[in-house]
Amino acid sequence: MAMYLGVVGVGGVGSAFIEQLGRLPNAPELILLSRSSQTLLSPKQDYSPRIPAADWAIAAATPLLIKTGHALSPKEMAEYLASAPGRAILVDTTTDLTLAQAYPLFLQKGISVVTPNKKGFSSDLSLWHAIFASAAQGNALVYHQATVGGSLPVLSTLRDLVATGDEIIRIEGVLSGSLSLLFDQFMPAHGSSDEQWSTLVAHAREIGHTEPDPRDDLNGMDFARKLTILARVIGLDVANPDSFPVESLIPAELSSLPSAAEFMDQLPRFDAQMNSLKDKARNQGKVVRYVGSIDVPTKAIKVGLQHFDEDSPIANLKGSQIISMYTKRYGDMPLILKGGGGGGEITAMAVMADLLKVMGRLN
Amino acid sequence: MAMYLGVVGVGGVGSAFIEQLGRLPNAPELILLSRSSQTLLSPKQDYSPRIPAADWAIAAATPLLIKTGHALSPKEMAEYLASAPGRAILVDTTTDLTLAQAYPLFLQKGISVVTPNKKGFSSDLSLWHAIFASAAQGNALVYHQATVGGSLPVLSTLRDLVATGDEIIRIEGVLSGSLSLLFDQFMPAHGSSDEQWSTLVAHAREIGHTEPDPRDDLNGMDFARKLTILARVIGLDVANPDSFPVESLIPAELSSLPSAAEFMDQLPRFDAQMNSLKDKARNQGKVVRYVGSIDVPTKAIKVGLQHFDEDSPIANLKGSQIISMYTKRYGDMPLILKGGGGGGEITAMAVMADLLKVMGRLN
Repeated sequence: MAMYLGVVGVGGVGSAFIEQLGRLPNAPELILLSRSSQTLLSPKQDYSPRIPAADWAIAAATPLLIKTGHALSPKEMAEYLASAPGRAILVDTTTDLTLAQAYPLFLQKGISVVTPNKKGFSSDLSLWHAIFASAAQGNALVYHQATVGGSLPVLSTLRDLVATGDEIIRIEGVLSGSLSLLFDQFMPAHGSSDEQWSTLVAHAREIGHTEPDPRDDLNGMDFARKLTILARVIGLDVANPDSFPVESLIPAELSSLPSAAEFMDQLPRFDAQMNSLKDKARNQGKVVRYVGSIDVPTKAIKVGLQHFDEDSPIANLKGSQIISMYTKRYGDMPLILKGGGGGGEITAMAVMADLLKVMGRLN
Repeated sequence: MAMYLGVVGVGGVGSAFIEQLGRLPNAPELILLSRSSQTLLSPKQDYSPRIPAADWAIAAATPLLIKTGHALSPKEMAEYLASAPGRAILVDTTTDLTLAQAYPLFLQKGISVVTPNKKGFSSDLSLWHAIFASAAQGNALVYHQATVGGSLPVLSTLRDLVATGDEIIRIEGVLSGSLSLLFDQFMPAHGSSDEQWSTLVAHAREIGHTEPDPRDDLNGMDFARKLTILARVIGLDVANPDSFPVESLIPAELSSLPSAAEFMDQLPRFDAQMNSLKDKARNQGKVVRYVGSIDVPTKAIKVGLQHFDEDSPIANLKGSQIISMYTKRYGDMPLILKGGGGGGEITAMAVMADLLKVMGRLN
C-alpha cells in the first residue's frame, strides 16, 4: 500500500532529508511540503501529482500542485494528511514548539511522526505523555532518533536495553557537537592552544558550527533537552529541562543583551575568566570539558564543566559526541557510542533511517 | 493477532533468552522448544497449552504437552510452525549449520527467523542469497543482530547507513571478546604482565571465556565469520570466511591434534614464540592486539595481529569489543561502537531486541 508523506521545514536538515528522499528507491509519496513562506500540496481529489522530491526546490513551478502563500496550521496539515488514501507520515524537520505541541493531534488521526525536533520530547512532561498516549490511541508510530546524538543509535539502543529488561545505572557523555569542538580547540588534550574563547566562538559561529545566536549552544539548554529525553526514555519523570542543574557558559551580565551581535561584541571581556578555568585544570594535569550525566538510582541529572585526564576518551573527542551507558548486564564495561554526530546531512540520515523503520512497520 | 514462537537450543544463550521471554509482557506464544535430546510441542489441534517459558526447565512435566525423545528435523519444525494459527517466528540459539541451511525453507513458509547463529550468514555466499531471497518470497523477516558484536547495535547501524545512502569506506575493530581479554591480560597497555600465554588460555577456558576447544577462538575463524557478515551487509560478495587472509594463533604443529586436552598440554611449548611477539611490540613502544578490517574501495579483508600505541582505544579495551565505521558522511570522525559485547545474557538481550522488532513489524 502506498504511503503518504508530509515534510515540514527546508532548512539544513530538511533540505538534506528531501535530497536523500529523492534518491530513495520505493520512496513514500510526497504530498505536502511546508516552509514558513509557502506550502505545496498535491490536489486533494486523488492526491496527485506528487511533489517531486528530487527537484523540490523548483517544485513550486510544477503545474497542478497547489501553492498556498503561507504555512498551513498544524490542524490543517493533520486534516490534509489524514484524508490521504493510505497511511500518512509527518516528517518535522523544524525546531518549532508549536508544531510539536500538535503531534498528539496528528497521532490520534493515525499519522505517524518522524522528527529530529527536540521540543516535543523535552518540554513539559505532559506533552511527552500526550504524544505516546496519542500514538497508541491512533495506532501510529513516533520515531525521534535524531533528537539525541545526531545519527548515533542512542535512543534505539537505550530503548532496546529497557525493553529487554536490562537495568540502566548511569548515562554520561558529551552530547553537544559544537561545545565538544569548542573545548577541543580551546584546550586540546595534547599540545596547547593560545586561542581566546571569544575568538573560537566567533569563528565557530561564522562557519555555522553554532546556532545563529551562540547563546543557544552556550546556555547548555540544547544539551539539557537531550538529557531530558534520555531520562524519560529510561522512565524518569523529568518535569522539564529547567528542573535540574545546568551550568550556563553565558556570563550573567551578557545573558539579557538583546542581540547576538551585541553578545559577541561583549564576549571578549570574559576571556580572562575562561582562561582561569583552563589554568585551574592544567595545574592539576587535567583538561576541562562540558559534559552531562544521569545517575539513575539517585535520579540526579546535571550538565556542566568537569575536569578529565588528558588520556581519557572524553578529553580526546576532537568534536565528536560520545555517550556511555552503564547497565546491570554490561557491568563495568559500559556500552559506548561515539561519532561526529551532528550536521545537516548526518541528522537527515538519522531521520531517513527512522522513516524507513516506520515504513517497515506500517507496511 | 497472536504470534507463535519456536525456540531451538537451551545452551548459554538459549536458556538466558527463554528466561527473558518468561518475564516479557505480551510475549509471543511459545509452542516449540527444541534441544538435542528432546522437543516439546503444544498439541497441534489448537496449539494449546503453550510451553511455560518462565518454567521451561520443568516444562517437560507439563501435562498435555507433546514430548518427542529426539530433536525434530528442520523440515518437521518448519511444517509445525507454518500451521500455527498466526505468524510464526523461529529463534535459533544454536551454532548449528544444518539448521541454518534450512532457514530458506522456514522463510519461504512465512516463518520469520531471529538468531545469533553466525553459520547461515557467514558460510557459502549462495546460502546468504537464498536466505534473503526466501524472506522476500515468504514475506518473512530475518534479524541476526547478535551475529556480530554481541548486543552492540553493529548490524542495524550499518544497515541504516547503507539504506540511507551513506558510503562505507572502512570498517575495523576487535570483534572477539575472548581474544580482546586474552591480549589485555597478556600485554596490558599500562603496567606489565608476566603471565605465559598458555596459562592465560587455560584459565580463560576454565572459566568459560573460550569455546570448549580454545582453538575455535584462536584460529580466528569466529572473527572471520563476523567480518564476512559485515562485508556482505555492505554489499561485498565474500565467497566464504576462508576467502581472505586470517592469521591463526594456533601453531601449525598443534592444529591437527585430535583433542582440546592434547592441544592444551602442548601449548606451553609455544610460549617463547608468543613472548617474542610481545617483546617485538614493546621494543617499539607498542602493544600487540588481534584485529580485523574491511577496506571497501580495495575490497581487502583481513584478520590478524597488529601493533598499536599504548594510548590508542584498541590497546585499552580490557576485554571489550570495538568497531569503527568510516563513512563518507562521517568523514574523519568515524562512528564507533564499544562495549562488553559477549556473554550469554548480553547475547540473549540482542536476540530479544530483534524479536521485539520482528513482532512490531509483523503486527
